[in-house]
Amino acid sequence: MHEFDDDTKVEPSGEGLWRGTVTDRWNIGRAPNGGYLLAIGLAALERALPHPHPVTATAHYLRRTEPGGVDIEVETVRRGTSLSTGQAKLVQEGRERVRLLATYRDLSSLQGATAVSVSPPELPAPDQLPSSARAPGLPTVAERFDLRLTPGSVSWALGARSGVAEVQGWVRFADGREPDVRSLAVFADAMPPAVMNIVEAGWVPTIELTVQVRGIPASGWLSCRFSTRFLIGGYLEEDGEVWDSRGRLVALSRQLARVNPPRLSRA
Amino acid sequence: MHEFDDDTKVEPSGEGLWRGTVTDRWNIGRAPNGGYLLAIGLAALERALPHPHPVTATAHYLRRTEPGGVDIEVETVRRGTSLSTGQAKLVQEGRERVRLLATYRDLSSLQGATAVSVSPPELPAPDQLPSSARAPGLPTVAERFDLRLTPGSVSWALGARSGVAEVQGWVRFADGREPDVRSLAVFADAMPPAVMNIVEAGWVPTIELTVQVRGIPASGWLSCRFSTRFLIGGYLEEDGEVWDSRGRLVALSRQLARVNPPRLSRA
Repeated sequence: MHEFDDDTKVEPSGEGLWRGTVTDRWNIGRAPNGGYLLAIGLAALERALPHPHPVTATAHYLRRTEPGGVDIEVETVRRGTSLSTGQAKLVQEGRERVRLLATYRDLSSLQGATAVSVSPPELPAPDQLPSSARAPGLPTVAERFDLRLTPGSVSWALGARSGVAEVQGWVRFADGREPDVRSLAVFADAMPPAVMNIVEAGWVPTIELTVQVRGIPASGWLSCRFSTRFLIGGYLEEDGEVWDSRGRLVALSRQLARVNPPRLSRA
Repeated sequence: MHEFDDDTKVEPSGEGLWRGTVTDRWNIGRAPNGGYLLAIGLAALERALPHPHPVTATAHYLRRTEPGGVDIEVETVRRGTSLSTGQAKLVQEGRERVRLLATYRDLSSLQGATAVSVSPPELPAPDQLPSSARAPGLPTVAERFDLRLTPGSVSWALGARSGVAEVQGWVRFADGREPDVRSLAVFADAMPPAVMNIVEAGWVPTIELTVQVRGIPASGWLSCRFSTRFLIGGYLEEDGEVWDSRGRLVALSRQLARVNPPRLSRA
């Protein structure tokens, strides 16, 4: 079994109740990555709802989640013919840590019009970009991915901030697991924060993350583009696009996050 | 009292329960506008939570809401020092119609870094653009606003689709009410769909709408930019920016919607 599947596995433990384990393999400092927690919640919702794919999923991060057991309380909000909606609470020690709201459908049956006005990021081939796995000082979560970012994406780590809050590159799981709809939530939060190319930041905790899944990814590398346009009073959005190896957009993400000063980075 | 305040008024009707009225003044065909329903839910959440401003609010539209009375069931999910989170259900005749999840804080006390990389839309002055209130065939909700859109924004109504899924223009309430944080949810869904500039559509129902409020608007005209980049199999995102009269971004929005064929427009 691959890391992602092992670490997002949930088992039924009662009526509308699921049990999983938050591992420390997806941590940034002491806190698990937000996309990873979203993926755990979606793993439970997926088994409770009649449709397979989350076309839009929102998570609000209420309190720090700790590595260890987690209860996922699932509510089926609506079962419809083409769409269904569910809610999930991630609870540890009786305290809710994350709340999710998501609407599902079957993406293999889309039949309406298609018109896409932008192209995937233009990137050098993955083997022409350095593998981030070899960079020092990265959070634990970085070990889960093979990340091939453009040099400008991590200008802050290379000694001079570019002044452009954009991150672009390729990503796949480090252990060779192929991408699928279930894993897009974690790919939508896998890159270092784009905002670090414009300001010094200790960490950038996610307040809310919304992922729209728009297609079923083909196997192979995903290419991504993440950017921040509006950093206002320490709050920022990070908008993301995730494209599959055929050059089709498979996920759009937006998160609201906050820049915390560097001195808090070791808290 | 202004229309918006009158039509989003809620009164306490029990523990965690509020009562409001959905008027037909914000309809598109037979369905109330999604931003208007979000604003009703936020009106109840605002009174239940300790912080005044929704920094991020998400609504999932489950079933059609009808003009008439509505119960709003509010749950305080978390009360924190700087952020609080709440959930609201809009219920009519015992059936949930809309579910909201929102996180609040006080936007008047933001103290972190600011860096904005884009400018407000470059528009002719409002009095140099036609007032949409005078256009024929508009939905009822259009009467609530004074909309001054660029000609390219409504190319479909002028006989030739521009092929660019973008809407830009000025907006304010038709009755002279000034914009504030409470009303940004409705401004984030006030424009005709950008996607109508690229495909023929009967209507474009919103599945999910997320609004990030990023600042407290000054009085005067708001300027807006809405666009769709990814129409895939009939599903699309619409991304919006709302700027105040001082040229500051005050809201970011993204919705997931679906293009329904023209023959369904009279259903």
